[in-house]
Amino acid sequence: MGMPLELNTMIVTKGRETRVEENLFVLKKKGYRLYPIEIPIEVRKTKDSDSNGTALIKKVEWQKSSTTLTYQLISLNSTN
Amino acid sequence: MGMPLELNTMIVTKGRETRVEENLFVLKKKGYRLYPIEIPIEVRKTKDSDSNGTALIKKVEWQKSSTTLTYQLISLNSTN
Amino acid sequence: MGMPLELNTMIVTKGRETRVEENLFVLKKKGYRLYPIEIPIEVRKTKDSDSNGTALIKKVEWQKSSTTLTYQLISLNSTN
Amino acid sequence: MGMPLELNTMIVTKGRETRVEENLFVLKKKGYRLYPIEIPIEVRKTKDSDSNGTALIKKVEWQKSSTTLTYQLISLNSTN
Repeated sequence: MGMPLELNTMIVTKGRETRVEENLFVLKKKGYRLYPIEIPIEVRKTKDSDSNGTALIKKVEWQKSSTTLTYQLISLNSTN
Repeated sequence: MGMPLELNTMIVTKGRETRVEENLFVLKKKGYRLYPIEIPIEVRKTKDSDSNGTALIKKVEWQKSSTTLTYQLISLNSTN
Repeated sequence: MGMPLELNTMIVTKGRETRVEENLFVLKKKGYRLYPIEIPIEVRKTKDSDSNGTALIKKVEWQKSSTTLTYQLISLNSTN
Repeated sequence: MGMPLELNTMIVTKGRETRVEENLFVLKKKGYRLYPIEIPIEVRKTKDSDSNGTALIKKVEWQKSSTTLTYQLISLNSTN
């Protein structure tokens, strides 16, 4: 009767993000996931890789057992 | 630094829902709200009114400090 | 990197609750579960059984992959 | 009818933590707050200060409109 969800504290892209504008990306993840919205959050390619930069999530959408994030990259790590 | 959200266990429409199809409705609420998705949930006009029926939330969207629900009415109370 | 949790909208006891006082019960469930606290919530023995009554959750504790609820029964269904 | 909660992605102590053991601390915060448990999380004195270190939250308790965290400091920033 419960609804499984996953609390996430960073964005792990696995390189599957799509750029929609200059600094705006869309990323679809499996399952229902809870992310902080409009709060600086780290972006990584994999969960163990270095940080790519920092983003603000602008939109979260839950539908058909998936979560679609729209996020704005606000800073980029120079080493990337 | 935290993100305020509200855990909701029923849909309170305040009569502001929009029918998009036969049994499918869209409702926009203020703030970021967490609802169970794809689980039967009671629908009421106000929080103290009798139940209108039961719905399944099919989509939840968070953006710009508001939550947009798309829900499917699966049963209707005969007294309404 | 995420934390799995389950959003719950009712208390399903499976008969495993322990009475600690007159109307106060403690129930331990597997996993991290999110329940509304201090809001009337239905109590059932199994997820498909009839409602036993209504409770207010007074305390939620997460530790070692389990959730311990303390709830106060505020109404009892006469048929039970 | 909803339950207000706050999603938190770091521990902000405001110097109010109590040491209970070597690396184990207890911190009480106002309101119901959702934190990732058993996942590395940053600890800061204020939300704008530098990081003090990293912790694992071992226990979260919600009761009477407050949240009590028990966390284990797993790394300390040398500059602190």
